Formats: sequence, structure tokens, C-alpha cells
Amino acid sequence: MNPTAAMLVIGDEILSGRTRDANMFHLAGRLTKMGIILKEVRVVSDEASEIVHAVNELRRKFEHVFTSGGIGPTHDDITADNVAAAFGVSIGPRQDAIDILATNYENGHTELNAARMRMTRIPDGAELIDNPISKAPGFTIGNVHVMAGVPKIFEVMLDNLLTKITGGDPIVSESVRLNVPEGDVAEPLKLIAHSFPMLSIGSYPFSNTEGYGTNIVMRGTQATLVARAASKVREVFNVT
Amino acid sequence: MNPTAAMLVIGDEILSGRTRDANMFHLAGRLTKMGIILKEVRVVSDEASEIVHAVNELRRKFEHVFTSGGIGPTHDDITADNVAAAFGVSIGPRQDAIDILATNYENGHTELNAARMRMTRIPDGAELIDNPISKAPGFTIGNVHVMAGVPKIFEVMLDNLLTKITGGDPIVSESVRLNVPEGDVAEPLKLIAHSFPMLSIGSYPFSNTEGYGTNIVMRGTQATLVARAASKVREVFNVT
Repeated sequence: MNPTAAMLVIGDEILSGRTRDANMFHLAGRLTKMGIILKEVRVVSDEASEIVHAVNELRRKFEHVFTSGGIGPTHDDITADNVAAAFGVSIGPRQDAIDILATNYENGHTELNAARMRMTRIPDGAELIDNPISKAPGFTIGNVHVMAGVPKIFEVMLDNLLTKITGGDPIVSESVRLNVPEGDVAEPLKLIAHSFPMLSIGSYPFSNTEGYGTNIVMRGTQATLVARAASKVREVFNVT
Repeated sequence: MNPTAAMLVIGDEILSGRTRDANMFHLAGRLTKMGIILKEVRVVSDEASEIVHAVNELRRKFEHVFTSGGIGPTHDDITADNVAAAFGVSIGPRQDAIDILATNYENGHTELNAARMRMTRIPDGAELIDNPISKAPGFTIGNVHVMAGVPKIFEVMLDNLLTKITGGDPIVSESVRLNVPEGDVAEPLKLIAHSFPMLSIGSYPFSNTEGYGTNIVMRGTQATLVARAASKVREVFNVT
């Protein structure tokens, strides 16, 4: 079986077009490799009610929710508070998070001003996610995993987190490239897709200087079925 | 006033990590320039119930919904049918869409096989969105604008669509780069943010070979306020 997941990206900078999100693509690839099916992504603004609503909807619908963004020291970093609100638990600075964060500064605890202390606020009952780069931890509460938005920090947090999460049956995929326009591929492909109901078979058009073509991608957890579908596609479209 | 918008990206290929979405970043930038506030983005899979649910939730919540993906000729292109279902209207091949699509093929209407005819299925009451590249049109129904997923086609459809949509007050932004770590910026910045409640003031950390720094971005529709907030940030952090 394959666990399901959603991602929640929090941040005005993505929605305003200032920043191009990179974490979604990274997470999608990592989860697919582990056999965890990413079923939905949402991007919401830095508004309390939006975050609470999205966290609650997604955590009830999917087995895991991965968030990115909004856990820094500034006034617009409101993710931790609103994840706590979504779970109806209290939040405050936690000693283990304080001690970890202090290791990021030359003069340790003395450099933990009020703003940096914001980053030690952890919802009650959460477990920390290690951040070897800038130390301020992420956390897991229930099935929600809260991580930083800065891509290199998101990625190391995810590395640590994924060692603790159980994946599913590996998802195998095979791609067949056809030099045939999608409109000519569609009808025979539909029949093939119908005869392999256990697989997800997608069709992705491309164009280059030689004209139009289509990539057919077969995906599923049964490697023999994927291989058989790929052979069938090659046979039907005379790919040697 | 500024109209609000949501984006709905439809496609397994984004969620599986096969394809990196490019349309969100493009749309976000275009809408911001027009003074339309992108408030939420969702990415859902090629599943009927997911598309219907997302379309209905977003179209009720925001003034515009822009969709990308799932309007091609293959079995996995199910967006048009499910947008029709979300609105409770019927859908079928429409003569104007058929005639437009035929112009894409050397032999015109005779090349419109059943698969290509799928691309002429338009929900009742919709208005077509022009696609000068591959002709198969997008459409607007109510406040939902349905476009292709292939980025260059999405972009030309959007060009055409946006000429028909009324924007809002232009959003002005100014950015100040500080060579100060975010944790030292946060407290003074919070006071500045509180004294400019009409602006959205964001703080984005960066690191380079010289150490840590922070970009402060002020955004709003009142240019004089944005300029004043930027001056205040420069003054407080001694930026010359």
C-alpha cells in the first residue's frame, strides 16, 4: 500500500511572484521515490485563518502533510502558531529547541534575542526536526511536518524527517517517446490505458524542430505490469 | 480595490515530480503587475472528484480562478468535463471550437479524429480563450478561466485572457537589502511593520560568502507609503 500526502506552502512571496517555489518539485520527487503519493499541494498566504483552514483540511484527508515556510524570526513568520491553533494546543519556547538554537551563535544563549526566541516556539506535543544548517528546528505534530521555506534548509530537514517515515511500495515508471502528435496517439492509447487499470498512464506532448511528439509515461507499483504496458505502447506505435 | 484570484493546477505529472510546474510563477507575476491578488494555489491530481471539489471551493472564495492542465486530447485530460460538472452544466463539441481547431491541420476538418474532437468539448455558456499556437481553445465559464498546461500555450492563452479582465490598483513594491542576519532585523522590523498596517512587509533571509543578510520587501497600493516605509527601513538599519 502507498501512504498519501499533501504539501502546504506558506508565503506571500510565492503568491506575489517574487520567489519561485522550489520545494514542491523537490518534495514530489523524494516522496515518489519512497512510494508516498503526493495527492495535493496548496500555497496560501501569511494569514492565520488561511493556514489553520488548510492545515485542518489536509491533515484530515491525507496521511502526511508537509509544510514549508513561515518559521523564521520575523513578524510575518506565523506558521508554528497557526499549526498549534489548528491542533488546538498551546505553544511556547521549548528548552531543547532553545539549547539547539544557541549552538548557531558564537556567544550561544546570550545572542538569543526575542526575535530568535520566536524560532524556539514549538506546539505542545511536537517532535523536533533537525536543521543542521541554521539550527532553528522544524517539528512534527500529529501527521503534520513543519519545515523551513529556504530550499537548502527545507531539503536537509526533509532528509532527516524522511528517515523516520515509512514509505510504500516503490513506484516504478517507464517512459516511451513517440514521434507522433498527441492527437494521433490518444485513441490507441486510451485502449491501452483501459487494459491496464492498475497503472496511471499519462501522455505529455512536446514539440521540437522536427515537429510534434508525445511522451507516454506508465506508472505503478507492479514493475511487470509497467514493463508490459510499455511493450504494448512500443508495439502499437511501432517503436523499435 | 484589488480583485482576488486563485490558481488550480491539474496534473499527476506535477505531483509525481516528473514535471516542474512553471505556470504558477508566471501567473503570479502577471497578476501582481495588474493589481490582482493571487491568494491561493492548489495542485490536484487527474481525478474527477478532486477537480470538481477544488473548482467549486475556489470559485466561491475568489473573484477569479485560473486553471492550467488537462485540456488535451488524451484519456487523462478530464478538466473540461469536470469544470462543467462543477458548474452543473452540460458539455459537448461546439461548432466554433471545431472550426478553429480544424485550422491547425493541413487537411482541416478531416483530421479531426475522435481524440481531437475531445478538445472541442466546451461547457454550455462558456466563452472561448484563443490559442494561437495549437488552436485548441481554452474557455472561461463564470469566473473560471481554463487553460492549457504546456507553458508556452498557457502563456499565450493568458495574454489573450488578461486583455479582457479588469485589474486593480497597481501594487508597488520596494526592496531593501540589509547585510544583517534576519534574527537581528526582526525586532526593529516588527515595529516598522506595525506602523505601516496598510503595507505587506516581508523579510527574506539570504546567505552568501560574506555571511548572512536579509531582503526586506514592502508592498502595497499606495506608492508614497511604500517609499516612506523603505526610507524608514534604510534609516533604522543605517543603509546609505
